Amino acid sequence: MEKQNRSGTAGKVIRCKAAVCRNPGEPLVIEEIMVDPPKAWEIRIKILCTSLCHSDVTFWKISIGPFALFPRIFGHEAVGVVESVGEHVEEFQEGDMVVPVFRPNCRECRDCKSQKGNGCSIFGDKLVAEMPRDGTSRFKGMNGETLHHFLSVSSFSEYTVVDVVHVVKISSEFPAEKACLLSCGVSSGTSLMLMWMTGIGAAWKVADIEEGSTVAIFGLGAVGLAVAEGARLRGASKIIGVDLNQEKFEIGKKFGVSEFINPATCGEKKVSEVIKEITDGGVDYSFECIGLASLMEEAFNSSRANWGKTVILGVEMHNTPLAINTYFLLRGRTVTGCFFGGLKAKSDIPILAQKYLHKEINLDGFITHEVNFQDINKAFDLLLEGKSLRCIIWMD
Amino acid sequence: MEKQNRSGTAGKVIRCKAAVCRNPGEPLVIEEIMVDPPKAWEIRIKILCTSLCHSDVTFWKISIGPFALFPRIFGHEAVGVVESVGEHVEEFQEGDMVVPVFRPNCRECRDCKSQKGNGCSIFGDKLVAEMPRDGTSRFKGMNGETLHHFLSVSSFSEYTVVDVVHVVKISSEFPAEKACLLSCGVSSGTSLMLMWMTGIGAAWKVADIEEGSTVAIFGLGAVGLAVAEGARLRGASKIIGVDLNQEKFEIGKKFGVSEFINPATCGEKKVSEVIKEITDGGVDYSFECIGLASLMEEAFNSSRANWGKTVILGVEMHNTPLAINTYFLLRGRTVTGCFFGGLKAKSDIPILAQKYLHKEINLDGFITHEVNFQDINKAFDLLLEGKSLRCIIWMD
Ligand SMILES: NC(=O)c1ccc[n+]([C@@H]2O[C@H](COP(=O)([O-])OP(=O)(O)OC[C@H]3O[C@@H](n4cnc5c(N)ncnc54)[C@H](O)[C@@H]3O)[C@@H](O)[C@H]2O)c1
Ligand SMILES: NC(=O)c1ccc[n+]([C@@H]2O[C@H](COP(=O)([O-])OP(=O)(O)OC[C@H]3O[C@@H](n4cnc5c(N)ncnc54)[C@H](O)[C@@H]3O)[C@@H](O)[C@H]2O)c1
Ligand SMILES: [Zn+2]
Ligand SMILES: [Zn+2]
Ligand SMILES: [Zn+2]
Ligand SMILES: [Zn+2]
Repeated sequence: MEKQNRSGTAGKVIRCKAAVCRNPGEPLVIEEIMVDPPKAWEIRIKILCTSLCHSDVTFWKISIGPFALFPRIFGHEAVGVVESVGEHVEEFQEGDMVVPVFRPNCRECRDCKSQKGNGCSIFGDKLVAEMPRDGTSRFKGMNGETLHHFLSVSSFSEYTVVDVVHVVKISSEFPAEKACLLSCGVSSGTSLMLMWMTGIGAAWKVADIEEGSTVAIFGLGAVGLAVAEGARLRGASKIIGVDLNQEKFEIGKKFGVSEFINPATCGEKKVSEVIKEITDGGVDYSFECIGLASLMEEAFNSSRANWGKTVILGVEMHNTPLAINTYFLLRGRTVTGCFFGGLKAKSDIPILAQKYLHKEINLDGFITHEVNFQDINKAFDLLLEGKSLRCIIWMD
Repeated sequence: MEKQNRSGTAGKVIRCKAAVCRNPGEPLVIEEIMVDPPKAWEIRIKILCTSLCHSDVTFWKISIGPFALFPRIFGHEAVGVVESVGEHVEEFQEGDMVVPVFRPNCRECRDCKSQKGNGCSIFGDKLVAEMPRDGTSRFKGMNGETLHHFLSVSSFSEYTVVDVVHVVKISSEFPAEKACLLSCGVSSGTSLMLMWMTGIGAAWKVADIEEGSTVAIFGLGAVGLAVAEGARLRGASKIIGVDLNQEKFEIGKKFGVSEFINPATCGEKKVSEVIKEITDGGVDYSFECIGLASLMEEAFNSSRANWGKTVILGVEMHNTPLAINTYFLLRGRTVTGCFFGGLKAKSDIPILAQKYLHKEINLDGFITHEVNFQDINKAFDLLLEGKSLRCIIWMD
């Protein structure tokens, strides 16, 4: 027997609007779709707001290979309210305010139980996957065709179905009835939690930046700026931003960026050479937040010998491998990478969400634009033109 | 005024025998050469014994580019006795038993003073260099031609000159007069100190292997086996050796190797796939001790997601870059590398040398052959044929 919910929708297919991507690189189409009820260990979420991240754009552009799955519903940064829950779900109930997360966290496997990293050895990396347990989709077009999920989240829809290992309750402080009434500011900020934690986690947990360190950040999008913020809070002595978009320097200053390099104005010199010059041999920590192997290499080459650490956050746009000079490695450099800042969703999100709800963290600076759902393509334009950090997309 | 020494050689050119490499890849020629007296901050060392490491072979083979310097005196694993010292040298005196080290350690710069790594930002990496302070050679052929140094050590000579930042006194326990009388066992073992510390340091300091970890070691030469020994002492649960030479499995067992993979017998499968199968997804720590980018990539691909760490020790034979799948990095893998196990020569060698002299460490297992200096080319043959781990080359 289904537990019935307040709106009477539990156990039934919901018809709602979604922004469907029918072909790679084409504008999304707001369509009416059908969302199946959640199966066992799944919950159906009413999305309050979502935002566009460059990872959506990267996969939206891919036109060949196993990652090119269309028609598809993108979106993975979001906040929503639980509409109904499937069988065996104890952790969530109708009305809970939740953040879906592309990185699974089952809390049972060796990886989830370990203190290290944030992968899950049972649920793995479902970069292309439908629902993780049965591999099927919960979305259909009105003509019955299957619509693919994205990163196990698919938040560019009024309703989505997410596995419990991919969702975190962000506050038990608010009674269920009030969660959906939370202020716009809280909702929009909460939907940026993931992006913010990706940067902060990379700076604090993965790099573990020390006071007085020198830092280089390749790409001053929202992710890169969140890294800058993390470096600033750790007391970095120099935070060098690298971006083709000159305007990012002014924006970056708010997040601690103290020096700026525009690769287009370096002439014959490589960015890594410029960085080595101004840091007496290279930075202590370097981060790639763009998604191009050539810049990952530059980031690595910008790091100093002996203890320089490069952290890759960018999702490579063309799946090009990173080429590393092995002598540079032998001289004591390290390169690593992380999804979601190396943080564990179930334990780390609630802590930071509480801090955010108590206004100890301010995410306003990252919200540069807001649009209604029907204008979602505007969010793509703004990000592609380098005009936005994060554009909040409101579902109503 | 020169301090005179017992043999009356101080301040004078010494004529002695050296194994000179005249052309890349050709047998060394035992020739009479002239060794200048040490300049300021330098010491002249009478080599007791030396051994051949694959790094000598790698540079001996290089026939083009800035690393191809001939005629040259190779050799960098050795133990010797101070014959005379140059101006300003306080740290050493005639008769001290010393180990020359290719990795400089000035103890004054930011890098040397730091707890991290083992590079020196003042003396850098003199991979191709002559004497580090003035860039000139202390060796001449009898016709006056310059003979190049190697790794700031050049131990394939009865006498060599080394900068004080490249040499460590291994024992203050033995009175100077007795140092040169130390037993053969002690001398030969001491000359292996560097190789042994390269492996142990990589396992303990750089990887920091934990009890119960799974480990893969690509290349079971002396360096790879020293890593195995380090992993065994840390209580690794599984130590997988990878080598084309099937005989290395039996030898490896003595050093803790518990499983063996011969890439030649893997058929269609990649070694990394085999390792992933037998370790449920990959090893916790993987080491490359061969010097081929393709195997460094396999080592990286053999490491598990989430916390897998790959340590590169091999000196790439063709300077080919290492190609890394960036998604594998994003899943939380790390790759790093080190020269000399990440240890600091001046502080770490005396501690381990004392342990060795007190028989807490046994290096006998690594000594598979011994030859006289005039038969040094035999040491090359044995290493190239995969028959030796370390061949001790005795100077008299
Ligand atoms: N690892 C993770 O968990 C994770 C999470 C979110 C995003 N990402 C990835 O992080 C990267 C950044 O995401 P974002 O949302 O901040 O993107 P963004 O588009 O907002 O920012 C990218 C920045 O890089 C700059 N840039 C682009 N090409 C450049 C070049 N050739 N040289 C210098 N600068 C250049 C742009 O001007 C822009 O400022 C993307 O690859 C995204 O997929 C990773
Ligand atoms: N990083 C450092 O400080 C440092 C110090 C010493 C040596 N090294 C390097 O470490 C490496 C090993 O040195 P060593 O003296 O132990 O060498 P070695 O020749 O004794 O051992 C190399 C081993 O690799 C095996 N091998 C060669 N090609 C192979 C292949 N394609 N697949 C599988 N196995 C293969 C050989 O059979 C041999 O057992 C060399 O690259 C050397 O230059 C580095
Ligand atoms: Zn994202
Ligand atoms: Zn798990
Ligand atoms: Zn060596
Ligand atoms: Zn130094």
